[in-house]
Amino acid sequence: MSFDELNDFLNVHLNNIGDPFVEGNCTTNTKFMERAVLDYYASLWNANWPHKSSLLGDEEGNSYWGFLLTMGSTEGNMYALWNARDYLGGKILLMESGGDTKKAAAPRLVYRQAAVPPNAKPVPSQARSAAPFPECCDEFCENYFSPVAFYSEDTHYSFTKATRLIGIPTFGVVGEEKYPGMCPITEDGKWPDEVPSHEEGPEDGTIRTESLAELVLFFARRGHPIFVNLNYGTTFKGAYDSVVKAMAALMPIFQFYGHDKRVIDAGGEESVRTGFWIHVDGALGAAYIPYLKMAAEEGCKFEDGGAVEVAPEFDFSLEAVHSIAMSGHKWMGAPIPCGLFMSKRRYQINPPSNPIYTGTPDTTFAGSRNGLSAVFFWSYISKHTLKQQIDKAVRCQGMARFIYNTMTELGKKLNLDLWVARSPLSLTVRFRQLNDDLVFKYSLSNETLVVNDVQRLISHVFAMEHVTKELVLMLAEDVMKLGPKAFKDLSDGTAGASDGLTTMDAPLVSCVPFQGRGFSGN
Amino acid sequence: MSFDELNDFLNVHLNNIGDPFVEGNCTTNTKFMERAVLDYYASLWNANWPHKSSLLGDEEGNSYWGFLLTMGSTEGNMYALWNARDYLGGKILLMESGGDTKKAAAPRLVYRQAAVPPNAKPVPSQARSAAPFPECCDEFCENYFSPVAFYSEDTHYSFTKATRLIGIPTFGVVGEEKYPGMCPITEDGKWPDEVPSHEEGPEDGTIRTESLAELVLFFARRGHPIFVNLNYGTTFKGAYDSVVKAMAALMPIFQFYGHDKRVIDAGGEESVRTGFWIHVDGALGAAYIPYLKMAAEEGCKFEDGGAVEVAPEFDFSLEAVHSIAMSGHKWMGAPIPCGLFMSKRRYQINPPSNPIYTGTPDTTFAGSRNGLSAVFFWSYISKHTLKQQIDKAVRCQGMARFIYNTMTELGKKLNLDLWVARSPLSLTVRFRQLNDDLVFKYSLSNETLVVNDVQRLISHVFAMEHVTKELVLMLAEDVMKLGPKAFKDLSDGTAGASDGLTTMDAPLVSCVPFQGRGFSGN
Repeated sequence: MSFDELNDFLNVHLNNIGDPFVEGNCTTNTKFMERAVLDYYASLWNANWPHKSSLLGDEEGNSYWGFLLTMGSTEGNMYALWNARDYLGGKILLMESGGDTKKAAAPRLVYRQAAVPPNAKPVPSQARSAAPFPECCDEFCENYFSPVAFYSEDTHYSFTKATRLIGIPTFGVVGEEKYPGMCPITEDGKWPDEVPSHEEGPEDGTIRTESLAELVLFFARRGHPIFVNLNYGTTFKGAYDSVVKAMAALMPIFQFYGHDKRVIDAGGEESVRTGFWIHVDGALGAAYIPYLKMAAEEGCKFEDGGAVEVAPEFDFSLEAVHSIAMSGHKWMGAPIPCGLFMSKRRYQINPPSNPIYTGTPDTTFAGSRNGLSAVFFWSYISKHTLKQQIDKAVRCQGMARFIYNTMTELGKKLNLDLWVARSPLSLTVRFRQLNDDLVFKYSLSNETLVVNDVQRLISHVFAMEHVTKELVLMLAEDVMKLGPKAFKDLSDGTAGASDGLTTMDAPLVSCVPFQGRGFSGN
Repeated sequence: MSFDELNDFLNVHLNNIGDPFVEGNCTTNTKFMERAVLDYYASLWNANWPHKSSLLGDEEGNSYWGFLLTMGSTEGNMYALWNARDYLGGKILLMESGGDTKKAAAPRLVYRQAAVPPNAKPVPSQARSAAPFPECCDEFCENYFSPVAFYSEDTHYSFTKATRLIGIPTFGVVGEEKYPGMCPITEDGKWPDEVPSHEEGPEDGTIRTESLAELVLFFARRGHPIFVNLNYGTTFKGAYDSVVKAMAALMPIFQFYGHDKRVIDAGGEESVRTGFWIHVDGALGAAYIPYLKMAAEEGCKFEDGGAVEVAPEFDFSLEAVHSIAMSGHKWMGAPIPCGLFMSKRRYQINPPSNPIYTGTPDTTFAGSRNGLSAVFFWSYISKHTLKQQIDKAVRCQGMARFIYNTMTELGKKLNLDLWVARSPLSLTVRFRQLNDDLVFKYSLSNETLVVNDVQRLISHVFAMEHVTKELVLMLAEDVMKLGPKAFKDLSDGTAGASDGLTTMDAPLVSCVPFQGRGFSGN
């Protein structure tokens, strides 16, 4: 859609400073639009809506809470990690009187560190004798507030950066530092950087549930709280991690080791928390899969006659999901990066209510927030009926099927293995990298993927709204004309690690693999 | 100015993903504008420009580097803290071959922790015998990579939040934890949260150089690297910390304890770093004080006949300045929050150059960055001559003088102490808080300030471009008509700390004082 009719909004300073649900004193805001947008997605994602505060009868904290992002999903992922770090790390936020250094000191918000509860370590066996897990390790209590992050090899590169920024170390880093040679999923015990992501095939990009569970078990029985990021679509393959499968494997572990319910002394009051945090990076998928689900339920068919498949669940209908981040410049196509973060009130580390604190609480990531994000979202959802959204979702999925079939046919005609692949329900189709001219002509994105221990050069096409059959057929025709010359490289891929790079013998803080993540250039 | 003619830009997705100086493969960007804007401010702030990379003959790393912000100065402050944390913390960023778990593993970026150099602790006295500082403490080496943050009581509330997010603890938190009762600037040795800010008077809002130096000395001789944020304008008082005075006091300390030059082993190569980082939060001031300086040099006068004063230096003409952040929605008046971060190439923690790494390096805060920020800045500076900028700066300063004089006169007429105050060169004038109706009518911002151990309710007016003499006189007339009823409270302020709040006995992680920072509501 076109956003240029919104130009009047460029004559006002739009700043949704602070919490979306508190007006504050910056009146040139679009928070009324923001709340409408948040309500819409809360409903779409089966959260408890409309938003309620504890003052409005939400003592359990089940109400959703969230805000619109100024920077896109990166900000939402950072915020999730930050919130999770303090939540899992046993931080308590309190309103206290000022220090003694000034007589009339103003009250201040204070973060304090909770003590490890005396009964932190679950009592061995009896109550839980049915579960097939080993007992807690000795170091359980000392790790009680040291969260560890888990995510797959196909996770967006910005996630590693965010874990490093926020300071939740990955299992690979903690493993190498504290438990060298003990990795449960490798033959030699060495720790990989990330969880393998080949659930259904050698390179489908979906997190391997079995490996995730083995890794989480290792850290959970040592007391570490667990942060898991699940991708709902990955950057390059557009693959969907199964939140349902992951939770089916992880919840028994969490329950066995008491991570399902931790009771912390928060200055006289009890703070009941989970010892795990499940974040869904739904940058693209969270924005449209719900419509695809509706299409499947209505029995919609694709143009080629196939039935619309049911996508795996990812939202707040799953009790374990703590937070979701989504971009506004992907599915919706906003002219600038923007997005949405959503969680539940009970996972916020809240300042206690205080009458002096009458401004808008600084609950979001930045203080000042882009008021245009709300305008774009609001405009988009108010101009698209549910039927239009469903049709668009089916059309794009159908286009991805069409691209896959077209490229497969092309490979047969050329008698060449084009490595055509599409992860289940993905909007992207990948194939052997085209030559530079074609890459430029069709503005394709390329990556080097490791498949069966060989590095392959791959192009991909994303079936967003602008892609038409004509465009796909034109590409196929161009390739057909050129034959093998249409491709960058006709080999089977290159084996062996990269040249000339070694490893320094100094403590590892973080790893940022950058190939295969849609990060490098052509 | 009006930005609505830029509406055509709302029809394209503008995403300046990654480094501004590398094009990458997202072609719908405005990086060419971004670079022009960065060059402009690099010139205005006396940085080494145009930008050069090491490949273009900048081996010393003196060239400026920076990027336009998507979120306003908060993002710039966060980025400065993040960069400083890793730089001061002895982190090394290396390109290494992948782990052994996969045969064809792609190379990866790896953060490693440098070792404390064997000669880290400066040799006692002889070479430095002239300096009047005590010897290093025993714990010097163990603190060598543990930075501590310093900033004043008048610092924007988001800064405390950012130190907490990024994980550079403040001197108050480290002091309370590691050195209880040893604070050198309080009688009882208790640690305040922040550096006092009353350089010239009881509440002028300018960081107290003497206190800063005493505090920094305490931590520098214990080996801690030092992060200092200086405000160049504070949020509520619009006060300017003197970077020149601060550096005159701190540099001898840094030199004595070897913080001026640290040589770290970065995997065979030497990495030469400073053991301190000076960041200037120039959200408002950095955008206009350079023009005021030009006005002073040209001998410009205000309408009331007064000469334009020379502002204290704050920019890269001072060797010690490591980074500056500035907002685009304040002086320039962009319709959405945006801003600019600038540093020098030699302070970046750079990945080594590598031919595989052909995309745009992920050097910025978020991955995706708002391309509109560059359009706003570019449009603004291309449509404003230097003379127009100088005139605007003089006009706004003149208006702040006019407001100050008008409110002072008003106090005399009413025979009431209106507590009228204006910090040197500030664009804001503060006075006794007006009643709710007038606050709403004139859209004033209020705060509770602690002056002489008493809490006072204060309103302030910011003399931005839209404020006219007519508006100021209208406000004065309204106040005159109502007399004492024009004010919220006629008392001398209230003594005593806030009611009903106590302190929990658990380790302190961070303090967020929120009064007096332009944070609370009316």
